[in-house]
Amino acid sequence: MMRLMPPGFARFSQTHSFDITYAGGEANVGIALAQWDVQAVHATRFPQNDIGQAATMYLRKFGLDASAIRYGGERLGLYFVENGANARASQVIYDRLNDSFCTLHPDDFDWEQILQGADWFHFTGITPALSESAAETCLTAVKTARKMGVKVSADVNYRKGLWRWGRTPQEVMPELVEQADFIVCGTSNAEDLFGILPKEGAKSNWESAMRQVMERCPNVKLIVDTKRKSLSASHNELSGRAFDGKHVYKTISHDLHHIIDRIGSGDAFIAGFLYGYDYYEHNVQKALDFGVAAAALKHTVEGDFNLVSVEEVEKLAGGDTSGRLSR
Amino acid sequence: MMRLMPPGFARFSQTHSFDITYAGGEANVGIALAQWDVQAVHATRFPQNDIGQAATMYLRKFGLDASAIRYGGERLGLYFVENGANARASQVIYDRLNDSFCTLHPDDFDWEQILQGADWFHFTGITPALSESAAETCLTAVKTARKMGVKVSADVNYRKGLWRWGRTPQEVMPELVEQADFIVCGTSNAEDLFGILPKEGAKSNWESAMRQVMERCPNVKLIVDTKRKSLSASHNELSGRAFDGKHVYKTISHDLHHIIDRIGSGDAFIAGFLYGYDYYEHNVQKALDFGVAAAALKHTVEGDFNLVSVEEVEKLAGGDTSGRLSR
Amino acid sequence: MMRLMPPGFARFSQTHSFDITYAGGEANVGIALAQWDVQAVHATRFPQNDIGQAATMYLRKFGLDASAIRYGGERLGLYFVENGANARASQVIYDRLNDSFCTLHPDDFDWEQILQGADWFHFTGITPALSESAAETCLTAVKTARKMGVKVSADVNYRKGLWRWGRTPQEVMPELVEQADFIVCGTSNAEDLFGILPKEGAKSNWESAMRQVMERCPNVKLIVDTKRKSLSASHNELSGRAFDGKHVYKTISHDLHHIIDRIGSGDAFIAGFLYGYDYYEHNVQKALDFGVAAAALKHTVEGDFNLVSVEEVEKLAGGDTSGRLSR
Amino acid sequence: MMRLMPPGFARFSQTHSFDITYAGGEANVGIALAQWDVQAVHATRFPQNDIGQAATMYLRKFGLDASAIRYGGERLGLYFVENGANARASQVIYDRLNDSFCTLHPDDFDWEQILQGADWFHFTGITPALSESAAETCLTAVKTARKMGVKVSADVNYRKGLWRWGRTPQEVMPELVEQADFIVCGTSNAEDLFGILPKEGAKSNWESAMRQVMERCPNVKLIVDTKRKSLSASHNELSGRAFDGKHVYKTISHDLHHIIDRIGSGDAFIAGFLYGYDYYEHNVQKALDFGVAAAALKHTVEGDFNLVSVEEVEKLAGGDTSGRLSR
Amino acid sequence: MMRLMPPGFARFSQTHSFDITYAGGEANVGIALAQWDVQAVHATRFPQNDIGQAATMYLRKFGLDASAIRYGGERLGLYFVENGANARASQVIYDRLNDSFCTLHPDDFDWEQILQGADWFHFTGITPALSESAAETCLTAVKTARKMGVKVSADVNYRKGLWRWGRTPQEVMPELVEQADFIVCGTSNAEDLFGILPKEGAKSNWESAMRQVMERCPNVKLIVDTKRKSLSASHNELSGRAFDGKHVYKTISHDLHHIIDRIGSGDAFIAGFLYGYDYYEHNVQKALDFGVAAAALKHTVEGDFNLVSVEEVEKLAGGDTSGRLSR
Amino acid sequence: MMRLMPPGFARFSQTHSFDITYAGGEANVGIALAQWDVQAVHATRFPQNDIGQAATMYLRKFGLDASAIRYGGERLGLYFVENGANARASQVIYDRLNDSFCTLHPDDFDWEQILQGADWFHFTGITPALSESAAETCLTAVKTARKMGVKVSADVNYRKGLWRWGRTPQEVMPELVEQADFIVCGTSNAEDLFGILPKEGAKSNWESAMRQVMERCPNVKLIVDTKRKSLSASHNELSGRAFDGKHVYKTISHDLHHIIDRIGSGDAFIAGFLYGYDYYEHNVQKALDFGVAAAALKHTVEGDFNLVSVEEVEKLAGGDTSGRLSR
Repeated sequence: MMRLMPPGFARFSQTHSFDITYAGGEANVGIALAQWDVQAVHATRFPQNDIGQAATMYLRKFGLDASAIRYGGERLGLYFVENGANARASQVIYDRLNDSFCTLHPDDFDWEQILQGADWFHFTGITPALSESAAETCLTAVKTARKMGVKVSADVNYRKGLWRWGRTPQEVMPELVEQADFIVCGTSNAEDLFGILPKEGAKSNWESAMRQVMERCPNVKLIVDTKRKSLSASHNELSGRAFDGKHVYKTISHDLHHIIDRIGSGDAFIAGFLYGYDYYEHNVQKALDFGVAAAALKHTVEGDFNLVSVEEVEKLAGGDTSGRLSR
Repeated sequence: MMRLMPPGFARFSQTHSFDITYAGGEANVGIALAQWDVQAVHATRFPQNDIGQAATMYLRKFGLDASAIRYGGERLGLYFVENGANARASQVIYDRLNDSFCTLHPDDFDWEQILQGADWFHFTGITPALSESAAETCLTAVKTARKMGVKVSADVNYRKGLWRWGRTPQEVMPELVEQADFIVCGTSNAEDLFGILPKEGAKSNWESAMRQVMERCPNVKLIVDTKRKSLSASHNELSGRAFDGKHVYKTISHDLHHIIDRIGSGDAFIAGFLYGYDYYEHNVQKALDFGVAAAALKHTVEGDFNLVSVEEVEKLAGGDTSGRLSR
Repeated sequence: MMRLMPPGFARFSQTHSFDITYAGGEANVGIALAQWDVQAVHATRFPQNDIGQAATMYLRKFGLDASAIRYGGERLGLYFVENGANARASQVIYDRLNDSFCTLHPDDFDWEQILQGADWFHFTGITPALSESAAETCLTAVKTARKMGVKVSADVNYRKGLWRWGRTPQEVMPELVEQADFIVCGTSNAEDLFGILPKEGAKSNWESAMRQVMERCPNVKLIVDTKRKSLSASHNELSGRAFDGKHVYKTISHDLHHIIDRIGSGDAFIAGFLYGYDYYEHNVQKALDFGVAAAALKHTVEGDFNLVSVEEVEKLAGGDTSGRLSR
Repeated sequence: MMRLMPPGFARFSQTHSFDITYAGGEANVGIALAQWDVQAVHATRFPQNDIGQAATMYLRKFGLDASAIRYGGERLGLYFVENGANARASQVIYDRLNDSFCTLHPDDFDWEQILQGADWFHFTGITPALSESAAETCLTAVKTARKMGVKVSADVNYRKGLWRWGRTPQEVMPELVEQADFIVCGTSNAEDLFGILPKEGAKSNWESAMRQVMERCPNVKLIVDTKRKSLSASHNELSGRAFDGKHVYKTISHDLHHIIDRIGSGDAFIAGFLYGYDYYEHNVQKALDFGVAAAALKHTVEGDFNLVSVEEVEKLAGGDTSGRLSR
Repeated sequence: MMRLMPPGFARFSQTHSFDITYAGGEANVGIALAQWDVQAVHATRFPQNDIGQAATMYLRKFGLDASAIRYGGERLGLYFVENGANARASQVIYDRLNDSFCTLHPDDFDWEQILQGADWFHFTGITPALSESAAETCLTAVKTARKMGVKVSADVNYRKGLWRWGRTPQEVMPELVEQADFIVCGTSNAEDLFGILPKEGAKSNWESAMRQVMERCPNVKLIVDTKRKSLSASHNELSGRAFDGKHVYKTISHDLHHIIDRIGSGDAFIAGFLYGYDYYEHNVQKALDFGVAAAALKHTVEGDFNLVSVEEVEKLAGGDTSGRLSR
Repeated sequence: MMRLMPPGFARFSQTHSFDITYAGGEANVGIALAQWDVQAVHATRFPQNDIGQAATMYLRKFGLDASAIRYGGERLGLYFVENGANARASQVIYDRLNDSFCTLHPDDFDWEQILQGADWFHFTGITPALSESAAETCLTAVKTARKMGVKVSADVNYRKGLWRWGRTPQEVMPELVEQADFIVCGTSNAEDLFGILPKEGAKSNWESAMRQVMERCPNVKLIVDTKRKSLSASHNELSGRAFDGKHVYKTISHDLHHIIDRIGSGDAFIAGFLYGYDYYEHNVQKALDFGVAAAALKHTVEGDFNLVSVEEVEKLAGGDTSGRLSR
């Protein structure tokens, strides 16, 4: 998607220009990993015109492998972002109707070829929400990955407003999530998609719900999640947790004053976790600390992409919040 | 529509921001007249969100009466403009699929109320091209206008690529054009829409074709047109002609070096002609001179809207091309 | 007035451009109400040139009824704003000398016609400060309003430096304020304009002073005021209070970190209060909460105008300061 | 003065920012000379605030000696410039009413001290037009210069609209011009200020009129002038002429396509002429060629100031119009 | 190199920001070809910091294969460009002293691996000018290419000021040029590098000189060149010629009014020629027409890179200079 | 140096433009003092081109006396700044290799003439770090100052990475520092440059170390220092201390939320201290309060220069942190 944002804190009614970046759940994850020298292939569909070409070029700049981008359809999906401050919330207006991604065909992609040599396939709950063909394409990809031994991670990102193509998320998502090894999932996601409620009197609602999610989806080995406390549009607190079926892991809470950009931190989190999981040789606590630190740093970077280095994430994950000038 | 343009001469692949203006055939005509203190009501449909609201506010700023704007649908139509220079052409990419205008309902508008007290109703050939409901709405408006004694002007603006909703322009346009008093029409329009070809050996192809158009559409009393010679993207020549069934009127040719903005001059022309026709008390030659001078000046104004004063148009229509500094 | 501000936090000596907005006490109030679909007519005077025209167009964009704007005089009033941060204060430099408003003539306005059908007439103490003719015009308007049964609200906005045309505010303001139904007034205003001091030992200085103001001005039924604690240029606390002759109403204190724009909150407050007073059917407490929330949100919007929605104000007035991303 | 201009070709009604430069007839001449390492002292008056300080700093940046700038009065004079193109003229709106220069006091300046060691004193016809005290100050300066043996140059810059302080230019200017050694003067200036008309049947109207001006003003030893042909706002032709009482000198005509900035070329011309007159050891033809080339180059520089080097002017004066890339 | 340019036509002394693009002779050629879907590998050296990384990302965006970029050294080479107009020339200031390219080591590159599968190796005369190690690296590359059967093209780009590392171009260049199959060479290059002068009385100086160059360098099969006539900084004429040892081929002259960017057209020319030579199956005339049209279009694109499509070049090469709006 | 910074919070990899300011330790001190009407001469060396000229013009704008700037060498030193926020640190990349300052010649400056009439000579530890000739030049200047009775202040600014020309700071700095009357010095500087460690068990490490520094450098009469606590890139705390050989003076701690610009506060501090020392007639406590308040305000000003007024500093030094709007 193209992301269009008024400069500074201008409201939509005031602005006379839009700053352009590009974005999208899976693209955000891919870029974050590509920045850290992980090879990341992005599979999507853009229109066959100079706007679609500009989108590809932008992704390529940040190191994403663009070989699985397909061209066709009518238009590039857009979204408009208005930057809030203090008690005024940031606002997002989506303009994705019939964009080239929604109208892709499942056989636009030869998943066996695309997934050749891959370690992970990642998708978010936004993709199957957009259209029947997007959901079908996602399912094909997931199944192919599973068959090929490629691990699957899923961000169970339930956005109620998006599901308009005929079937409900409850009908579609479980089949997809069941194929995943790792998922990002919160208490309300569990209820919305699986009808799972925490057991009454449970010490931890999240742990209780996730335990049931794992029972329902036996392939899922690890569930991660972030907790955000929104004190104002400019000031949030952020922490993370993980559950591996036995233990709940937790991180410190990051105090995010002076938020520069509120969007994309969920994608930064899972990208960070996946990176850390490999980097720290499957140490869940360290991977979680890395993932949340990555998400925290995302709030300081303009645009959806988490353009920070491994060193910067490690420093913060290690507890150094000083932001001391680097000469 | 929202018009998004890279600043200066940047190509789509280079730009990191878009300058925002708003545009649209009928809006362009309405704004031009509103600038000249003619009351102009614009009937259209925008989405019910802050982007739609921003569009209304922009039109209102330039004096358009926004009372006939309806709210609903999914999205605001967009178009992207890349500014060319010399041998590199300017480029337009439309993104209107399923915009709020295309999906309007014919009964969104109470034409009797909207047209109350009006002198003219104006539409362009782009409107019926967009969707069945847009075509129906246009036809209802035109017939109501006719019934109420409101004169009708039509810009027979045939854009082949736009007609995708099922019926051909040849099936739709004639019924609409027949209701008009004044039309903007070129030789190729006559062929494309009516199958009319200039008589062989005619002294003037345009006159010959227009004579037949008038025979076919007896309500049409006056046809106007511009002739553009494109020497480069930065340098055009522009003149105008009119035919009232008897005489052909012509203007001088305006030499347009240093084109600032190539778009919207057709709308500036008909707005200028309609204004001049009233201002000069139905003197076709003077109205035509005014209309072409208005179109020529449009090339010096950024955006689709022809933000020039009556005095500026008169000065140029009177032959003063000096552009002498005004202190 | 045109408001000229260096971008970002540049000082006057550093800047190479000014961002342009338009402003003015009564305009700010009118725009805030117009945003909320209240019909608001703004009576002022701009120069008869393209700069004056641009000012009108800007006000019209935000929905103000421009039919009572008069054209004449020499120049548009200006003011320059430098944006402060932390311990460095924001700075305002006025450049209003002999602007078109100061030199208006009392008979430029036919108040009976302008006020036809109005509920409220609002003015600020800045208007009579500017020139003798401005003071006279204001008095005529106020008296006409009173005669017609139009309620009057006044922001007793005493700016010592402005009063330079011959008479003192103590000679001029009381006659104006006495006509008002609602006023914005603080303890120091009461002393400066009426020589009123709180009774010694009074439990509340403000209540004591306002009680005396009401005795002096029997038409005044309600007095409102804000309290601001300035911790730094970037961080203020803001609360409100009202007195109806019997009770003092108070609001919570809003914590305003990350101030985007310091100016116009007084106008946002009275606009909010007047809107809330009607909206909540004369519930003073709710109107006051709404007014202060509106003023608090103003600090997040660039420019003088309070471009926020009723929903946004209600959310904050209801205690939700979370600024949670709206998708 | 501060010069405020919309970026690019935006009209006043479109712009949302102004680019800031500073300007003024005498300042323009002073800056041009300072760029060429001539010591130039600028005597003017700015307000005692950060805007006035910013003006001084801007002049100082370009090398003007700011020691004779006085501080006081109410406001800095402004002017707004809208950049035209092709047939649309550039537009200037002055906003100088009661600026700090108009309200200066003749004894703000100790001319004997300021002129100590100077070769030339230069003034333009705009200064005495602004106010009685400005005219008096100018006369004092001119007389002091004369007394001290400092040569005087005057640009007889008659702007009818400016003369509003009581006396006519015909009453004021002759006494000033009579003190000058060199003047810039055109045929219409001669008529407007001295009532001088070219002799009927004269071979050259300008020569005929200037001969009479010299008879009227025996101190004047040299008169220079430019001829501009305005083909469009983007395309002018410019040449120069000089008369020393005996011969008329002429330059080639410079073809100015692609005008970047139309303003300040008259000041660039006289600055160039004065520089060249000294540089070429009183060779009038060479000085004239240099002055016109400087004026021609001014059209390629944004803002009023002629920021070009001696080498650039010499190259063009020598006939090299190639604009060949310099690496 | 990073290219830093004031926006618009600001002079260095006026600007308060630089627009950033990246550039360099071989990079320009590579990007042009990459835009046209030719795989192009760029071998260079950037510093190991975020500035060097930004340079790589920029090249990658436009499709260049960045796998042969090496990291090390102290700094990225810079150059500053000031945009001229009309008689004021554009100006380039190089700042390459000890940049990471100059200080590369010949064994930073494994040419056999880099050139594996390549059709052409291209270099410009700027590379060997910069330092001894750059010259050695270039020679190694050229010899390896030759050995591997990779064809070599060379732009004999003699910039006198650059040669400062000890040996003269006459000592260094012939050995390099002799390895080339195709070269870009003008009459003065032939004299400067080989001491070759056109035969007296030759019908065509260029043909005469090139014939001798070919005798001197028997591997060179084709020589191409452009002719530029600089009417002003804004207006040039450009044509091309080629010599294959037998015939001289010539193109029409392109009239380049309204030059947007003067730099990079030589690189656009050779890239266009090489592309056309392949595309038109070794038809020299067609390749030459394509190359010159590409160079002509380069003047309409901001920055060094020739971001135009094959279709755009073909249209112009085919004689269509109309720049007609593309919808 | 020229300082190049992406606008807002863009990272180097995201930016498409750099905002330009100029900077440098001694220049920063000089500008701060010049702003406060202290005559300050800056001795440095810039390249002889338009970039060097632009640097001089920028310094001159802010009132620095540019008469001791020399021209020559290859290039202007640069540094790139990326603005951090919250946990993301700001980043500086220096690009000074072989800049015109590093390659100056000691006899470029006639110190007797430059220091004529001066009260103070100030240098920082960065100057001798850059090159042998810079160190020699600094030593000559310091010795000349001492001989002429000009007091010397030194900022012992040890940046390990810069010392690359052959000798160690321990070999070079002591001789320089010994000539100084006042120095800025921290505990780690004392160890790094003199090998001085605080006495074990000392009540105050800094006092203990500084006492030894004074023993080692008997000319040094006063040592000042700042303490910074970095809570995040956006939030620091800052206080100051001074030691006159007998007493340690301390200031309150300034809470710096919302840091606009992190760089240059050390220079602002010593400039403020020197100004205050004179202004408050050698009252060390008051001078220290002024110096730290100046440094605190620096964090609110974009660029390296501390563009704040004496009044602003005094207000903050007096404890008023309110940042209350100034009208």
